[in-house]
Amino acid sequence: MAPVRVELVTVGDELLIGDIVNGNAAWMGQALTRIGVAVSRSVVVGDTPEAITGAVNDALAHADADAVIITGGLGPTYDDRTRDVLAEMAGVALERDPMIEKRLRERAERYGVPLRPMALRMAEVPAGAAVLDNPAGSAPGLRLVLGGRPVFALPGVPYEMQAIMTGSVLPELDSGASSAQLTLRTAGVWESVIASRLASVEAMEGVDLAYLPSPAEVKVRITASGEAVLAAAEERVRDLLGPTVFGIGDETLALAVNRLLIARGESVAVAESLTGGLLGAELTSTAGSSAAFRGGVTAYATELKGSLLGVPEALLEERGAVDPQVAVEMAAGVRERLGATYGLAVTGVAGPDPQDAKPVGTVHIGISGPSGNRSVTPVLPLPSDGGRARPLVRRMTVVHALDLLRHEILGVAMVRDWEEDQEDREGLT
Amino acid sequence: MAPVRVELVTVGDELLIGDIVNGNAAWMGQALTRIGVAVSRSVVVGDTPEAITGAVNDALAHADADAVIITGGLGPTYDDRTRDVLAEMAGVALERDPMIEKRLRERAERYGVPLRPMALRMAEVPAGAAVLDNPAGSAPGLRLVLGGRPVFALPGVPYEMQAIMTGSVLPELDSGASSAQLTLRTAGVWESVIASRLASVEAMEGVDLAYLPSPAEVKVRITASGEAVLAAAEERVRDLLGPTVFGIGDETLALAVNRLLIARGESVAVAESLTGGLLGAELTSTAGSSAAFRGGVTAYATELKGSLLGVPEALLEERGAVDPQVAVEMAAGVRERLGATYGLAVTGVAGPDPQDAKPVGTVHIGISGPSGNRSVTPVLPLPSDGGRARPLVRRMTVVHALDLLRHEILGVAMVRDWEEDQEDREGLT
Repeated sequence: MAPVRVELVTVGDELLIGDIVNGNAAWMGQALTRIGVAVSRSVVVGDTPEAITGAVNDALAHADADAVIITGGLGPTYDDRTRDVLAEMAGVALERDPMIEKRLRERAERYGVPLRPMALRMAEVPAGAAVLDNPAGSAPGLRLVLGGRPVFALPGVPYEMQAIMTGSVLPELDSGASSAQLTLRTAGVWESVIASRLASVEAMEGVDLAYLPSPAEVKVRITASGEAVLAAAEERVRDLLGPTVFGIGDETLALAVNRLLIARGESVAVAESLTGGLLGAELTSTAGSSAAFRGGVTAYATELKGSLLGVPEALLEERGAVDPQVAVEMAAGVRERLGATYGLAVTGVAGPDPQDAKPVGTVHIGISGPSGNRSVTPVLPLPSDGGRARPLVRRMTVVHALDLLRHEILGVAMVRDWEEDQEDREGLT
Repeated sequence: MAPVRVELVTVGDELLIGDIVNGNAAWMGQALTRIGVAVSRSVVVGDTPEAITGAVNDALAHADADAVIITGGLGPTYDDRTRDVLAEMAGVALERDPMIEKRLRERAERYGVPLRPMALRMAEVPAGAAVLDNPAGSAPGLRLVLGGRPVFALPGVPYEMQAIMTGSVLPELDSGASSAQLTLRTAGVWESVIASRLASVEAMEGVDLAYLPSPAEVKVRITASGEAVLAAAEERVRDLLGPTVFGIGDETLALAVNRLLIARGESVAVAESLTGGLLGAELTSTAGSSAAFRGGVTAYATELKGSLLGVPEALLEERGAVDPQVAVEMAAGVRERLGATYGLAVTGVAGPDPQDAKPVGTVHIGISGPSGNRSVTPVLPLPSDGGRARPLVRRMTVVHALDLLRHEILGVAMVRDWEEDQEDREGLT
């Protein structure tokens, strides 16, 4: 059976004008891909009835859309127009659903917030449409058949959309087929270096590679003609990249580090400066991190690096806060004071302005653990505009720090490029 | 002159399958809106030449697309096909541009990374196309005329796309008109409460309101028939919502707090638990925050709340870590130890599992400052699935904490609903 193909229509002026990013389309893409359903196209249109009608009609006209999923425009306010549009397209009236009304009243009572008449709009359903249970919020989903194809309408609030997708939409669309595709994740090495390293995999019959860069990370997506080819390609990629591969699919670097620590009964504490807490936040983003994460100290003001972390005042005075040895002292200090197996520290210049005559993007990472103390100084490729650099520098710092910790736990050296490719390279440049 | 309308085409399988969110479309939407250019539609398609060709042809067929901006598919690897597609559509060949080649070689040398032959693909340009300077990276942008309309192609790497948009695309599209639209930002109050409160603004002639909820925040976007009407509507919204409005446009709550602190010569230090550093990371997300942010202590392991923050051991033993008084002691401890005007602390249960018999979403926020110590316990609306709750609880905690600090600095009470609406409400429920 050919895979089911879905067209996504996300509704909202706020998406077109960029007030929010389209996280819903990304989440749906992941969830659908996981069950072997292909997203053929994803369209964003504004809140007007005309724009929504146009997009749904376009989707129904596309031969490669077996189903349509609409998100947004089901909320309680007057700019939420999706239910009206669908009723109109189906040529039916809107009817008040007593079960939904009852749930709206109960929910409002539970949170001690009054039920406004406006909120009752969420209880209106196009006649004949199926109501899809929303276990996470107020507005239920809707399912109609238009042009012979199922059309699902879901609220735009992310966790409500996700709950209805999981409970109602995905089970209906799941064909039982899964695509021969997987994504391996790497950190700390440039995209072009990774791609060159994998030229021989690229050349394999029935294998297609794609590279998805994000700050200091590259995902390698392998698509194969079948499961056996996929397994062979995965093995070859892992052989070539070695420990640079930290995970698969949606496994984050923080998750990989947490798993290693928990498996060894070890722990980490962090000392931060330019990242302001982002490193700790990333380490605790995954459930169960309390088994491995002790805590952290953010010494943003320079003198706190002395008083809270025990960095020698003379060192700070002589070299300033942005220095490899300061990073090492911060790591050793936080390790000892918080009683962790590893201390991990970052200091640097996030921008937009230089600090102590060090340019934006100067970053030192210190680590202290059972096999001693050391620091690394990653090279961060930066936009020329310092104002745009700040979030990027902070994010790359977090990734490089977690990557250093991961290599330290594993006891392997970090790779920026591969020795055996040197000869090849010298012939080319 | 009618405003220029642009259709966005973002290219990438990684967007359709949800490996990344479409931040580029959001950024472009914001930048275009700011100069009065309307985004009529935004489409995501896969990496194949057929999909890209189809999307560009569709855009050229739309009467409401005066220009097309494509992002993605200009990188160095073989799945980057946009330049080939544009050459084909224009009926011209690709030519190696010697200036771009020279810059590629210089850049590789500067970062000490070899220039792979693959990278030279980025120096190829469809004959007759204009090259748009990329000050932030390797792949330049391209500008062609197809179907009588300008078509811009930009790389998908966000800060490179942004640099080329800013340097080349926005100046060409800027009509000098700006839309009569603005967005006011609120925190801590539910969307339906805000919307009810603003019913009289909704009723104003020539005024349109939209509500954009995100965790613990609601943006109110006002669109008006002209600048004078917009000013009147803004004044009325500000009157009705009072200090619940913390900012305008892209001003974040952290920025608002930082500005208040800096203007008063005051500072803050944070003590975190469930957020793992996210509160400090948010406060330092904006440039210049070092003038107001002292630092923070993340006491993730319970006993560290005693040793690092001075929370009495007896209190922790008797009530556990998730308790209003513990939040207050954390705030007072971090304020004193880090020498800040305000201490701000959060403790709670992020999930997925309950802690000390307290359910997921239980959060206490403590504050300590010149006018004393106190705590608040916000009610967080949660999805029923605890696994999905974790990032949401952490984000809502950060927003409520910053909102408490902001009200404390201003010396005003926090509002969850408006007294004068009570009567109206009781008649309705």
